[in-house]
Amino acid sequence: MPRRDLIVGIDFGGTKILATVFNPHYKILGREKKETDAKAGVQRVIRRIARCVFDSLDDAGASIRQVRAVGIGAPAPVDPLTGTILDAPNLGWKNIHLKKDLENFLKVPVFVENDVNVGTLGEQQRGAAQGARSVCGIFIGTGIGGGIVIDGKIYGGFRHTAGEVGHMTLEAASTKKEATGLRGTLEALASRLAVNRDIRNEIKAGHKSVLAKTGSGNISWIKSKALARAIKQHDRVATLVMERACHFIGIAAANVIQILNPEVIVLGGGVFEALGPFMLPRIRKSAKAHTFPPCFKGLRIVGHALGDNAGVIGAAVYARQRLQSRKR
Amino acid sequence: MPRRDLIVGIDFGGTKILATVFNPHYKILGREKKETDAKAGVQRVIRRIARCVFDSLDDAGASIRQVRAVGIGAPAPVDPLTGTILDAPNLGWKNIHLKKDLENFLKVPVFVENDVNVGTLGEQQRGAAQGARSVCGIFIGTGIGGGIVIDGKIYGGFRHTAGEVGHMTLEAASTKKEATGLRGTLEALASRLAVNRDIRNEIKAGHKSVLAKTGSGNISWIKSKALARAIKQHDRVATLVMERACHFIGIAAANVIQILNPEVIVLGGGVFEALGPFMLPRIRKSAKAHTFPPCFKGLRIVGHALGDNAGVIGAAVYARQRLQSRKR
Repeated sequence: MPRRDLIVGIDFGGTKILATVFNPHYKILGREKKETDAKAGVQRVIRRIARCVFDSLDDAGASIRQVRAVGIGAPAPVDPLTGTILDAPNLGWKNIHLKKDLENFLKVPVFVENDVNVGTLGEQQRGAAQGARSVCGIFIGTGIGGGIVIDGKIYGGFRHTAGEVGHMTLEAASTKKEATGLRGTLEALASRLAVNRDIRNEIKAGHKSVLAKTGSGNISWIKSKALARAIKQHDRVATLVMERACHFIGIAAANVIQILNPEVIVLGGGVFEALGPFMLPRIRKSAKAHTFPPCFKGLRIVGHALGDNAGVIGAAVYARQRLQSRKR
Repeated sequence: MPRRDLIVGIDFGGTKILATVFNPHYKILGREKKETDAKAGVQRVIRRIARCVFDSLDDAGASIRQVRAVGIGAPAPVDPLTGTILDAPNLGWKNIHLKKDLENFLKVPVFVENDVNVGTLGEQQRGAAQGARSVCGIFIGTGIGGGIVIDGKIYGGFRHTAGEVGHMTLEAASTKKEATGLRGTLEALASRLAVNRDIRNEIKAGHKSVLAKTGSGNISWIKSKALARAIKQHDRVATLVMERACHFIGIAAANVIQILNPEVIVLGGGVFEALGPFMLPRIRKSAKAHTFPPCFKGLRIVGHALGDNAGVIGAAVYARQRLQSRKR
C-alpha cells in the first residue's frame, strides 16, 4: 500500500483552475491547468476541479490513494470551517458547499480558503516573506485583495473578513467608485479597473497615448502587458496613471503598517506581476512618506517571489495546517 | 505575613498620575491622584509615581508587602519587554528605563505598556468589549490613539507600534496637517487640535458661534465641555465641525474593520467622553456607509464603559498577565 503523504494545492480562479501535486517537502511532482468556464454551472465546475486533481496526479505518476489532503484557494469570501463559498458574484455562486462536494468526488479531506489568504500564506511559508511573524499581502489585479498571516497562520478576525484592504477609503472626497459602489477606496483608485477607467478618461480628454490605438477613446480593456509596454515606451498617459495608482497603493500600505505593524508587506497580483520593477520603488516611497516614522522602522515592502505558484503552495500549506490542528 | 495578592494599576499621563489598588477580583481598595508636573524632571516624576503608589496603598489600608506587581500605562511608545519609555515628547522623555527605576523604589515587579493599549485591554477585560476575541480601541483626545487586543492580549505587531490609527490617511488630497506633519490623517481631521483649528477658522471666516465669545477668532483652546455646551445650544459652527470629525472617525473605523475585522470597536478619550451621545450614532453611520457590507456583519461599535478607570484596570490586568506568562 502506498504512503499517503502527498498534498494537492488548487488555485481556483474565475478563469482558470490550477492543481499542483506536492511531496512533503513541497517539491512539485505534477500539475494540471483547466479553464474554469463558470457558465457551465456549479456542478460542472466542481467536477472539473476534481478532474484537474486526478489529471495533476496522472502528471505526477501518482494516485489519489497517495493523497493526504487537498487545499483550495477560491476567489470569494469563504467560511473555512465548513468549506463553504459564501458569495462569488464573478462565478455566480452563493453558499456552495465546495468542501463537501469535492470530498464526495475525491474521498480525501478537502480544505477551502480564500485565494488571497492562501497566496499570502504561501509567500510567508516559502516565498518573499519567509519566516516573518506578521505579513500583509496586497494583490493588485482587476480588483485589489489582501490577506494577513500572523504567527504562520491566516488571520481572519471576527467573521473571517480581515485583510480586505481594497475597500479601505484613502480619498474620502473622491467621486471615483469601485464595483461595490464605495468611493475613494484603494480599489476605486488603483485596481486594473481604475487604471483602465483613468486611461480612457485621459484619452477622451485629448491626451495622446500609444494605448489609444486599440480604439481611440473607446478601448474597453487594456491588459497589464500592454500597459507595461506603454510605460517602457515612456507613454505619458500610462506613466501618469500608473504613478497615481502607486501613490495610492503606498498610502494603503502605510495605513496597514500603522494599524497592524506587520514585519513584511508582500505585493502581488496580475498588475504587479507585469509592472513590478516600475511599481515597487514608487509604492515604497509613497508608503514611507505617509507613515509616522517610528512605525516604519525595520519593516520590509517586497514583491512576491512565487508568482502563480503562491496560490497552490499556500493552499497545500493550509491543508497541512488544518490536518495538524485536527490531530491535536 | 500578609498575602501578596494586590495589584496596583497606574495611569501615567502628561498632566496627572492616577494609582489604584485592586484585589484579585479587581475590586478597588484605594486610590491616589497627583499632578505629573513633567517640568520637574525625570527623576522627580518617577519618585512622584512611586509616592502615588504608596499613598494609594495608604488609602487602601494596605502595605507594599501585600503587592504582587504594579502595571503602568504611559503616554508614549514603550518597549514592554524592557519597560522602557522610548520617546515621549510631551514629557520630554527619551529612552527612560521606567520599569527598572520604579522597581528600585518599590521592590516589586513593575510592567510598563502604552496607555492606549492598556485602556483597550481594560475595556476588553472588564468594560464595553468584555469577552470579545478581537477589539480595536480608538481614543479621541488632543491626539488620536488606538490599541488592539486579540485573544485577550495586547497585539503590538512587529515593533510594538500596531494600533496607531491616528496617523492613517483618509483624505490624501487634504492640506490639513497633524503635529507630526502628516496630512489628511485621522488626527489631522478629527482630533481635539483639528476641531479647535477648524472652529477657529470658521469664526475667522465670519461665521457666528457661541465659542467666539472667548476671544473672537483668537481663541486658543476650546475645552471638550465648552464644545458639548455649544452643541447643546445648537451652535452651527460647533455642530458642523463635530459632524465632520465624526464623519472621519467613522471612515477610520471602517478602514480598521476592513483590515482587522475586529469583533468590537471601542470609542473613548476626552473628546468622546464629553460628546459621546452626539458622536456615537454619527460615527456608526459613517462607518457603516464606508464599509463593504459583508465586513460589517455582526460587528459592534460602542462607547467606553470604564471612563477614567480603563487605564488603571487595564494596567492591573496587564501586570497580572505578565506575571502569569513568567510562571509558564
